[in-house]
Formats: sequence, C-alpha cells, structure tokens
Amino acid sequence: MLATDIIAKKRDGLALSAEEIRWFVLNFAAGRLPDYQAAALLMAIYLRGMTIDETVALTEALVASGETISFKGLIPYTVDKHSTGGVGDKTTLALAPTVASLGLPVAKISGRGLGFSGGTLDKLESIPGFRAALSPAEFQRNVREIGLAVVSQTAELVPADGKLYALRDVTATVGALPLIASSVMSKKLAGGADAILLDVKVGYGAFMKTYPEAEALARLMVEIGRARGRRMTAIISDMHQPLGRAVGNALELREAIDTLRGDGPADFRRLVVTLAGHMLTMGNIAATAEAGSQMAARALDDGSALAKFRQFIAGQDGDLRAVDDPDRLPRARFIEDVPAPRAGYLASINAMEVGLSAVMLGAGREQKGDVIDPAVGIVLRAKIGDRLDAGQPLFTVHANSADKLRAAAQRLLAACTWADAPVAPPPLIHAVIQ
Amino acid sequence: MLATDIIAKKRDGLALSAEEIRWFVLNFAAGRLPDYQAAALLMAIYLRGMTIDETVALTEALVASGETISFKGLIPYTVDKHSTGGVGDKTTLALAPTVASLGLPVAKISGRGLGFSGGTLDKLESIPGFRAALSPAEFQRNVREIGLAVVSQTAELVPADGKLYALRDVTATVGALPLIASSVMSKKLAGGADAILLDVKVGYGAFMKTYPEAEALARLMVEIGRARGRRMTAIISDMHQPLGRAVGNALELREAIDTLRGDGPADFRRLVVTLAGHMLTMGNIAATAEAGSQMAARALDDGSALAKFRQFIAGQDGDLRAVDDPDRLPRARFIEDVPAPRAGYLASINAMEVGLSAVMLGAGREQKGDVIDPAVGIVLRAKIGDRLDAGQPLFTVHANSADKLRAAAQRLLAACTWADAPVAPPPLIHAVIQ
Repeated sequence: MLATDIIAKKRDGLALSAEEIRWFVLNFAAGRLPDYQAAALLMAIYLRGMTIDETVALTEALVASGETISFKGLIPYTVDKHSTGGVGDKTTLALAPTVASLGLPVAKISGRGLGFSGGTLDKLESIPGFRAALSPAEFQRNVREIGLAVVSQTAELVPADGKLYALRDVTATVGALPLIASSVMSKKLAGGADAILLDVKVGYGAFMKTYPEAEALARLMVEIGRARGRRMTAIISDMHQPLGRAVGNALELREAIDTLRGDGPADFRRLVVTLAGHMLTMGNIAATAEAGSQMAARALDDGSALAKFRQFIAGQDGDLRAVDDPDRLPRARFIEDVPAPRAGYLASINAMEVGLSAVMLGAGREQKGDVIDPAVGIVLRAKIGDRLDAGQPLFTVHANSADKLRAAAQRLLAACTWADAPVAPPPLIHAVIQ
Repeated sequence: MLATDIIAKKRDGLALSAEEIRWFVLNFAAGRLPDYQAAALLMAIYLRGMTIDETVALTEALVASGETISFKGLIPYTVDKHSTGGVGDKTTLALAPTVASLGLPVAKISGRGLGFSGGTLDKLESIPGFRAALSPAEFQRNVREIGLAVVSQTAELVPADGKLYALRDVTATVGALPLIASSVMSKKLAGGADAILLDVKVGYGAFMKTYPEAEALARLMVEIGRARGRRMTAIISDMHQPLGRAVGNALELREAIDTLRGDGPADFRRLVVTLAGHMLTMGNIAATAEAGSQMAARALDDGSALAKFRQFIAGQDGDLRAVDDPDRLPRARFIEDVPAPRAGYLASINAMEVGLSAVMLGAGREQKGDVIDPAVGIVLRAKIGDRLDAGQPLFTVHANSADKLRAAAQRLLAACTWADAPVAPPPLIHAVIQ
C-alpha cells in the first residue's frame, strides 16, 4: 500500500477499507510514516468525514497499536465510565466509591488534566501520600480486596492515539467527530471494559458546544462500542455552567467528600446518582436505572459510599486524616470573595472562562508536564437562576498570588451575564442514549 | 500569528488574508514551520479552494521567498512562454529560435523533466557540449548578441515553491488548481516576464485530463498574471495523443530541427506557428496573431529560424555538427518497429502511456536526480484518424535494452484503441483565452 493512495482516497471522499486504516495507523505509530502524511490524512478526514465502519476500523487500529488490559478472572464484568471532560467535573471521585460500595467493582485507568478541564488523578493527588502509579500486582489486589482502584494510564496503552492527538493539536484537526470518538473509545476498549457509560458534556465548558454536536458524538461512540460487542449507554449532561460549585483540585476533592457524606451541591449529587443508576444496571446489580439511583442515594446517605472511599484512599497510601478533616487538604494563601457587581438574576456563567480562570490561578496545565497547584481554584457562590443583591458573594477565589487573584476575579466577572427577570437554570441531563 | 489559526480558518472555508498567506509561506520556506502544518494547510486548500485574491497572494508570497530576475536594460519587453507539460512537447526548441529570428528576444529559464513529461534542457543536452548552466554574464551576453538563451533554474528562484511542491507530491495535494496556478505563475513572475503566453495542455498526457479543468487553470493563471500587471494569453492545446511524432530527448530534438528546416510533423509545426503568432503580437512585433503566424511560417521556411537556432546552440557551446547532421545525435542500439496488430482506424493513443513507456526505456526520470538516456524513445508512425493495415508500422521504439524494448512495445500496443469506421482526429487548439 502507498500512503499517498490512502490520503488521496479520503481526500476524494471515498471510504477507506479497514486494511488501509490499520496499515496507515500502525505504520504511523511505528514511525514508518512521516507526520506530514498523517497531517494530510487527518485534515482530509476532518473535511470528508468517516463512515461508521471506518470509525470502528480506526478505533480498532488504535487499540492494536499497543497493549490491552483484561480484567477477566479479576472482575466478572467490568463497567467503565468516561466523561468527555468539563469544568468542575469531579464525578468519578464520588461515583466510583458509590457503585463499588454496592458491589460493582471499579478498576479505573485515569488521565490528568490538560487545558481548561481537570483530571481525576490530579484531584486525588491533593490527598497527601496518594499514589496513582500502582504496580500491576497492587492494582489487582486492591480491585479484588476493595473493589476499587484508580491508576494512571501507561504509555503502552494505545500509543498511536497519543501520537495522533499531539499531531491533531498542532494541525487544527482536533474537532472531527470520528477522530474524537475513536480516540475516546480506543482507550476504553484497550482498558478492558465490558460495558461503558459515557458522560458526554455539552456547553461552553465542554468540547461539544451545542446539543446536536454532543448527541452526534454520543451516538457515534455508542455505535463503535456496540460494533465491538460492548454494552453501551451515553448521557448528555450540561456543561454550560460548571458542575457543582468547586473548580480546582483540592476544592473539588472536598466537594466530592461532602457529597459522599450525603451533602454537596444538589446538581452534582443528582448527576452522581443518575450515572450510578445506569452503571449499576449495566453491571446487573440494579434492575432499572431508577432502582439503581435509589440504591446510590442510600449509599451516599448511609455512609457506605464514604466508607468505600476511605478504603480506596487508604489502599493507595492516601492520608485518611485529609479525608476525615478536609481542612488538612492543601489550602491557598489568599481566599477572597468576588461580589456580585449588580442585583439581578444570574443568567449565565461561561464554564470555559471559569475553567481558564482556574488554570490561570495554577490549578491546571497549559502545557503537558506543567506542575499544578492543588490548593488554588474557584468556588461558585451562585449558579444560573439564582437571584443576588449587589455586593453579595458571587465567587470565592482561592489563590497563592494576589495578582493572579485579581486577574481571575476580573475574568470571572466577565464570564457572567445578568437578567432582571427570573431565569430558568439549564437542565442537568439533556438526554440518555441507549 | 499562529499557524493553527491559519489552518483552522482555511479548514472552515474562510478566505485567508494576504498577510496570513505571506506569513505562513515565508515561515515555512525559512524552516520555521514544520512540514506537518504545511501538509494540513495544503489539504485544507485542496478541499476548500482559494479565492482569486488568495491565489494571487499565494503567488506573491512564493515569489517573495527568493530572488527575482529582471531583464530591464537587457530586453525592453520580455515575452515568456510556458507549457503545463505533456508528452512529445518539444515546442520551445522550435518556437524560441523562430520568434528570436523575428526580433523578439527570448531569455528563458527552463526546467528538467520529471515523471511522464520531458524537459527542454534534457532535450537540448542531447547535443554534445551544450551547456545549460551559463554564468549571469554569459547569459546576458547571449541574450544581447544572439537574442536567445535557455538556462537552468537556480535554487534561489522561488525556493518556497520547490519545498511546497515536494510536500504536495507526498501528501496527495498536487492537483489543486490554486496550488498549480500559483506554482507556475510564481516562477514566471520571478523570472522577469512582462508578458506570458501559457500553453495549457489537456488530455490523457497532460496534468489536466478534461477541458473544463484545463480552462479553469488557464483562466486562473491569466487572472493571476493580470493582477500582477502582466500581459497574458493562454492557449489550450491537445494532449490526448503525443504532440508531433517523437517522444524521447534526442528524437524530439531531431524533430524540432526538422521543423526548423521547414519540415516536421504538421501538428507540431502548426502549434509552433500559432504560439509564435501570439508571442510576436504580445511583443509588439506583429499587429495580429494571424500576421505573426505568417511571419513565423516564413521564418521556418526561409531558414532564418534554423540560423538563429544554430547561433543559440553555438553560443552555449553545443556541437553544431549534431544540428547540421542529426545522425550524429545519440543513437539507441535497438531500433524496432511495432506493427499494427489489426487493420483499422487508429481511434486513440493514450499520451500518458506513451510518456510512461519512454520513461521505462530510460528517457525520463522516475525520481529527481535520475540519469536519463538521451538516445531512447518512441516515434509514432501513425496518429489518431490514420488508417493502417495489420502489420504496418505503428510505432518505432528506440531502446538500449532488448527487454525494455519488448516491455515498451507491449505497453504501447495497449495504449491504442481502434475503430472500423473513420475517426476524426482531436482538434489541436481547443481555445485561446485572452
């Protein structure tokens, strides 16, 4: 095969065969095809699209580029959950112990944050001592004994995806649905999941800004998973405003712990309970999503989810004193309220701007490898639809630099719009796709 | 500016500004932008197209990437001619001395052949001693004293075009009109032409396979030239079958010399005379193209074109004995006729296949830098519309290897189709665009 023939075929709008896609991806991953040929093919895919069959073949080729994980023998049936990423999305921190406490083992491979969206591991590492890099033996032992472990992704899993993603990032080809869907699904499939619950975020603070885009991505990922024999469900959830109230690593961890104690913001608790309902159904522990959600709500209220969280943290060498007394978590030097500049109804809070404000404070990475500050971040004191008087707290900013605090406050104020008449908050769950 | 922003803009179908195009091209030419970003932009241009303004800006940016030539002071008004390339296209060899003999100086920078199409310099170098690499002083002296010089292109002229072309070749982005047009026109503009006559070939043996494509390319190049203040004419001429009868370097040179003696194939002579008419009009030597063509026909018949050709060859150290006695030109070891496999009317001769057969014999380069064999090639003994009996000579193959001769003969037979009823030959000149 010739790389130029494959590029030309896609350029002309024709469907590539599974063999052609596999040949291109594996040779690219092995360094036998230059970046410029992959860049040309990526742009042709961006503009010409891919059929479902092509997207499935691309996903399989990505999986075939590296090692795969299997939990057979360890977990009878592995249910994984994946969020497409958003601002304040600490869902895994509360969801995983909740379902694990109800008998559904969770063996999760997680990533770190990049850009405006945070990463589960970064949040967990706010806990002193917490180790994400378990050995395979430790990982298996914890999954078997505790029913829950969350570890960092290895370089051996789907290496072609990492290489392609880096190239997409510098060639303006990140946003193509077949490329996004195959990237996400290849990691899930290589990670050994039998059933996958997708939390596709939509809104300012998500990769997909509009509902039709989010729905198209969700349906595409569901189709890919089904084509590979996986049980699939996708939820489209709101990311116009941040999820919950906390944005920033230790702040979000604290909010997750609050939720595991039966408190926490209503929207966040509702999302956790909803997702848990679907996971428990997929794992054959609940008969229906509604029944599963009721079980999850009880686990949050009766302390069993929190107990599982404590076991999980202790199993990965985290300091339980920080769980039991969140004041022990890293704390910023400057904590200041940003007051509402006017009276009125909060009409919108651009989640992307809130996420970028948190990155500016040091909570996220602008470049891979940047060191993050676990203490800094933002707490939303109001959400869309709330009525405030002028001067009432709108945000609380946690910063380790007075300059950065001022800059973040300005940016946060500019991220809000106001109305004089009541405003209905956006729905939290836009759709469930099964 | 950011390369990814420029790529994204073109990806989304928006027109780039002249500044954006210039920034990208100059930074790419200087090695400050990686090949993969240029590859992504090229594919986006291929699929999204470019406006006339963008194409003019791209042409100007290519010109700005290197040195430019000016013949001001040497020639009052420089008329250049460019062919988009075909099989058996030895036009410059006869055209340049014809118009030079009529008082229109020709200072030509020429290329070498690549792929199925030959290059003027390769054909001239069939003459023992001929030197294409004149010093600037020699070049100027010959243009002043003889009125005609043909030299090789320097690396300093339009370097960005060479770099972009190499990348287009390996990313399946060669065939985009704005890229082809800007590439051709940048070299003509940098080469100092005041007026440009374009010979756009159409057919199997040309880059543009169909008339609408050829016309679109011709009109685009004419518009680019006009936008830069050049006087422009384009001719769309046929390349379904090879031009004239000879394909191969020394064979084509010999056919050009025959034509300069007032003989030569009718179609080739007609094209030379037609193009000469337009060049002489653009150079204000003839009042009309028809009057110019008549002057050119006389120059071919009365020996003045041949006398100019002899001066030109001698001025670049070529051995005039090879001009006066073409039997002294390089000669192949095996010269064999390929007989017509059946009786009938020759309905088509795929010029591309004839060109590739010649390359197979060694007449052309598959890769840049390949050594070519000046002696080998093909002579067409019949053209479209001719009636042959079975066994009459159809081609004569000149080869230096018996194996290659057999392979070429087979390929040539497969390149022809036959009819039982008379077939009208294709028109030589499809259109003149002014």
